[in-house]
Amino acid sequence: MARVAIIGASGYTGLELLRLFARHPGMEVTALVTRQTDAPYVADVHPSLRGAFDLRLEALSLAEIGERADYAFACLPHAASAALIAQLLDAGLKVVDLSADYRLTSREVYEQWYKVTHPDPDRIGKVAYGLPELYRSRIRESELVANPGCYPTSAILALAPLLKAGLVSAEGIIVDSKSGVSGAGRDPKPAFHFPECNESFAAYGVGTHRHMPEIDQVLTDAAGQGVEVLFTPHLVPMDRGILSTSYATLADGVDQNKLMDALRDFYRDEPFVQVIDGLPATKHVAGTNNCHITARVARGRAVVVSVIDNLIKGAAGAAVQNFNLMSGQDETLGLT
Amino acid sequence: MARVAIIGASGYTGLELLRLFARHPGMEVTALVTRQTDAPYVADVHPSLRGAFDLRLEALSLAEIGERADYAFACLPHAASAALIAQLLDAGLKVVDLSADYRLTSREVYEQWYKVTHPDPDRIGKVAYGLPELYRSRIRESELVANPGCYPTSAILALAPLLKAGLVSAEGIIVDSKSGVSGAGRDPKPAFHFPECNESFAAYGVGTHRHMPEIDQVLTDAAGQGVEVLFTPHLVPMDRGILSTSYATLADGVDQNKLMDALRDFYRDEPFVQVIDGLPATKHVAGTNNCHITARVARGRAVVVSVIDNLIKGAAGAAVQNFNLMSGQDETLGLT
Amino acid sequence: MARVAIIGASGYTGLELLRLFARHPGMEVTALVTRQTDAPYVADVHPSLRGAFDLRLEALSLAEIGERADYAFACLPHAASAALIAQLLDAGLKVVDLSADYRLTSREVYEQWYKVTHPDPDRIGKVAYGLPELYRSRIRESELVANPGCYPTSAILALAPLLKAGLVSAEGIIVDSKSGVSGAGRDPKPAFHFPECNESFAAYGVGTHRHMPEIDQVLTDAAGQGVEVLFTPHLVPMDRGILSTSYATLADGVDQNKLMDALRDFYRDEPFVQVIDGLPATKHVAGTNNCHITARVARGRAVVVSVIDNLIKGAAGAAVQNFNLMSGQDETLGLT
Amino acid sequence: MARVAIIGASGYTGLELLRLFARHPGMEVTALVTRQTDAPYVADVHPSLRGAFDLRLEALSLAEIGERADYAFACLPHAASAALIAQLLDAGLKVVDLSADYRLTSREVYEQWYKVTHPDPDRIGKVAYGLPELYRSRIRESELVANPGCYPTSAILALAPLLKAGLVSAEGIIVDSKSGVSGAGRDPKPAFHFPECNESFAAYGVGTHRHMPEIDQVLTDAAGQGVEVLFTPHLVPMDRGILSTSYATLADGVDQNKLMDALRDFYRDEPFVQVIDGLPATKHVAGTNNCHITARVARGRAVVVSVIDNLIKGAAGAAVQNFNLMSGQDETLGLT
Repeated sequence: MARVAIIGASGYTGLELLRLFARHPGMEVTALVTRQTDAPYVADVHPSLRGAFDLRLEALSLAEIGERADYAFACLPHAASAALIAQLLDAGLKVVDLSADYRLTSREVYEQWYKVTHPDPDRIGKVAYGLPELYRSRIRESELVANPGCYPTSAILALAPLLKAGLVSAEGIIVDSKSGVSGAGRDPKPAFHFPECNESFAAYGVGTHRHMPEIDQVLTDAAGQGVEVLFTPHLVPMDRGILSTSYATLADGVDQNKLMDALRDFYRDEPFVQVIDGLPATKHVAGTNNCHITARVARGRAVVVSVIDNLIKGAAGAAVQNFNLMSGQDETLGLT
Repeated sequence: MARVAIIGASGYTGLELLRLFARHPGMEVTALVTRQTDAPYVADVHPSLRGAFDLRLEALSLAEIGERADYAFACLPHAASAALIAQLLDAGLKVVDLSADYRLTSREVYEQWYKVTHPDPDRIGKVAYGLPELYRSRIRESELVANPGCYPTSAILALAPLLKAGLVSAEGIIVDSKSGVSGAGRDPKPAFHFPECNESFAAYGVGTHRHMPEIDQVLTDAAGQGVEVLFTPHLVPMDRGILSTSYATLADGVDQNKLMDALRDFYRDEPFVQVIDGLPATKHVAGTNNCHITARVARGRAVVVSVIDNLIKGAAGAAVQNFNLMSGQDETLGLT
Repeated sequence: MARVAIIGASGYTGLELLRLFARHPGMEVTALVTRQTDAPYVADVHPSLRGAFDLRLEALSLAEIGERADYAFACLPHAASAALIAQLLDAGLKVVDLSADYRLTSREVYEQWYKVTHPDPDRIGKVAYGLPELYRSRIRESELVANPGCYPTSAILALAPLLKAGLVSAEGIIVDSKSGVSGAGRDPKPAFHFPECNESFAAYGVGTHRHMPEIDQVLTDAAGQGVEVLFTPHLVPMDRGILSTSYATLADGVDQNKLMDALRDFYRDEPFVQVIDGLPATKHVAGTNNCHITARVARGRAVVVSVIDNLIKGAAGAAVQNFNLMSGQDETLGLT
Repeated sequence: MARVAIIGASGYTGLELLRLFARHPGMEVTALVTRQTDAPYVADVHPSLRGAFDLRLEALSLAEIGERADYAFACLPHAASAALIAQLLDAGLKVVDLSADYRLTSREVYEQWYKVTHPDPDRIGKVAYGLPELYRSRIRESELVANPGCYPTSAILALAPLLKAGLVSAEGIIVDSKSGVSGAGRDPKPAFHFPECNESFAAYGVGTHRHMPEIDQVLTDAAGQGVEVLFTPHLVPMDRGILSTSYATLADGVDQNKLMDALRDFYRDEPFVQVIDGLPATKHVAGTNNCHITARVARGRAVVVSVIDNLIKGAAGAAVQNFNLMSGQDETLGLT
């Protein structure tokens, strides 16, 4: 039975991890780490967990974490995350990092987009990107896995198989994404005040969102050539879910059947990706670790539509899937 | 053409007043007063007003307000409101106060519930309560009107006619109210962060809400005897609207027809109260100054259900209705 | 490993049962029964279940159901349910009935409120009411359990302990309930068309809802004397969740502490009822089998506020809890 | 005072027209035409209008409509609309057609996309397209105006100025649009049942939506060369609002400033289009006839984001704007 800690358990990702942990038969939660010093019960921080866990969030030292846990899920802000993870690894823990710190393989790109000095630069580029559908064997052997961003997961799962198969051009890809508000985190801000964002739909961060270089990097790896996507995120007045509509130029002779066949072939044995005939809706994957994908050809271009739950396949569920692989358990354990 | 100022125009009530003012043929907006010193354009504070007003919010002095405007709509926090209003009245303006400062007629009750010293105690008890359906003639002659609270409006319109007619008992009244989130104002707080209150329904302030003594006072006046309601507010995951379900003990021999007849008689000539046969829904009054009411008898008691738009009949619309009366114009001008 | 069938699996209750079954280690789903003859895959009826079940909904005969399953969860309309259940029991299955057919113990009351002739009148009054918090031992020994209605569950859990302890009067109880829209079922109707009920809050069925006599009956049993509640349901623009605000007259000398103590005592060992200090919100129990309850004294009366997920503790979760008891398994198996 | 009729007043467009008419000082509503023969009061069909209109919906003959009204707003399904409009015009009325019947200028394209024989083919291609920002002078002189589709309005206002100015290529344009649910009309259907579409975001009609050829046609006219856009609509869980994100290839040497300057120049004197610096949100135009637009350059391409209220600038508001022009009144009368 693996003993697991969550570092930074008071946000939405922490809550979602705990919901999944409550049903996971192959782990025991032994530490919830916070900076707060009043050691609140988890049910006071997350009332949804009342009855599920009788734990406190504690301001544990590194040594205490090391004594209590074998695995850590880090849910800290970027930079803070890598600073601690370097120490956790030294203390012998295996780590799933839910921050962005180890996703990008270039220190330069990281520092340009995240505007901070990376606290653990030597590890950059040596960490498995935690998307099992692309990097399963590396994840299995890793002590540290960089859990992907939510938007990148939705876009990469849609496009990587088509780029790998050479069915669409690496140039001119557009990813138009729409996310529920939980993606913005738990801190109250004017833009996410209920009467401001309820009954409203808005674009934000056009061409400037930090997930853009992450999508570029993984799709470049899939395509075997440089990919630079134009990424536009939008905010949907709902709690959870991401839908990405990706547009790409077709290679010669490619039709809709070839796109669908390539997706079906690629995901045939994947437990959490379903290629569907109809058009997907975020509600159909809400609360699950699934990704639904379909492809269309319209006006001579590929349109790939993919949906995930941003908090599960886009965060906590992927982290559990990675943990299952890292700990040698059934990849689907505790996930539906 | 009346020249009007809004004092404190950056919140939801200010926005709603401006929306109504944009359609009102009998006034000109001449001053939007704020404490901010950078004089922002109203469209930068309220993007919904882009194209409707080309005004700035300004940190005007009392003298400047007095020069520019004949009427002021005060949308300040309690205590701050009365402190300024005393000066505005001295400067010759007529005022609609949208705060709670002049609603209660007892200084003691005010200070007990609002936990502040009243800054203008001499005026307490001498100000018209701005519910035209009950106090129209007083409002017409007033220089200062206390605009009612949103919950009280919904409850008083439901119950006052029945108490006046002696059809229900003054004792044991329960008002179970449900409000959209705009009632909580524009400041972002954890409880109103979208992912916290969306898809959730909650009770709050059971028996402790400041609107309870306000309801008591006006219903006591209507009943001609002491009324103490048990008031329970709830938060509905929607922008606007209040529905109040009021329960009362029937007087002897009273049935549903008598309740409905009393309501219809009382509101026969009222432009903004409609007594309906079916059960009301907040959507049917959203964006209007209307109140829909119906009554039922069930298990031997009266159940009165009323709906208003909390921002309009519960705030800005009532304020315009009061202004119309105070300025000698058609009471319905600019209102639908 | 118990083999279970769902009769009528295409609605929201069927979906929710299947979600719970997917995580339940002590059962195997062996039959999904429908009247449709085209045998659709469950993922085509419930896209949310794609990847979780590879089953078809089938128009099975009674004999086929009997061969395949040991337990049946009946999700049929009232009257249709009892007609089939009588046969399922004869065929040796144990049954959880999610319809209203066996909840009421009086044929006369049933036929008055449901306007049909009961198809299995001899069993009326002999069936365990499936609320384990009140009837656990009977449920354990039953071949047939009547799963409670969603509103009654929320109201009974709030009031039964106080009535049993004699802390509130049996007379004059009011239950003011608010439910998400999934409670209305899956058939599209004008009232539940998105643009009609979104951003709206409405009352319905004041004093005429069929759950009223069900609440009366179980609270009468708890109080040991006749209880007739005034029940008012409302529709909240959200998917799931019920909050009930119950009002009752206090017995002499009872204060808030006594109410809270009685609730805490009653639910001390219950896995799915949490008595909380704060005011509850439906979001905190969404997706769980939990009920959160608190009590207040205001204006001399008891106000008890309780929340459940109408589809889980109010339907499918309670059914699993009952199944766990009937099959001699851990009562909490597969439930969080 | 123009006398106006609405033909087909029971849907959402009819409701929205009546809301606007209630505030319009330059018209009188004299006929609401329906196929229903029970002559319901408008407040029974649209409870939101209680208190605003005391009219009935009537099954009037053509002669009766002609006697009562000078202008007709036709809100009928396609084909039914043109069949009646031909007669209304013969009877001397001026007509704003809110259906799609006269928008397309090619009978062949119409019949291909709408799958019906056009009932008034001779008029096709001779009717003004009711987008005043592009066709104001034609509208002024017209007896019949084809009110634009909601999606086309949002896309055309975003792209036409840039195509006219030659700043973006006519080839390869993508319009990714998101609409509130009221766009789907008032008939209850499974896809729009509250628990199905609430808290969900979905794509539909990728490359097959009937608004695609309409966008093509008007942008072709603006560009002076063939334009074929790839159009993808999506459904947002909210009542009203459309946001379109349009992607286009930049002409040589064009940067973001040139795009913004072109938009500002084009709309400088337009009362209902605001070119804004920030990114738009549908809430900021909800309830208004406004369109907010901004442009970005990202990854070397133009991204234009535009928002409208689909029921106002996308339907009823545009119809009133067209009526104002046709009747020689101030174009902004009754609109905010």
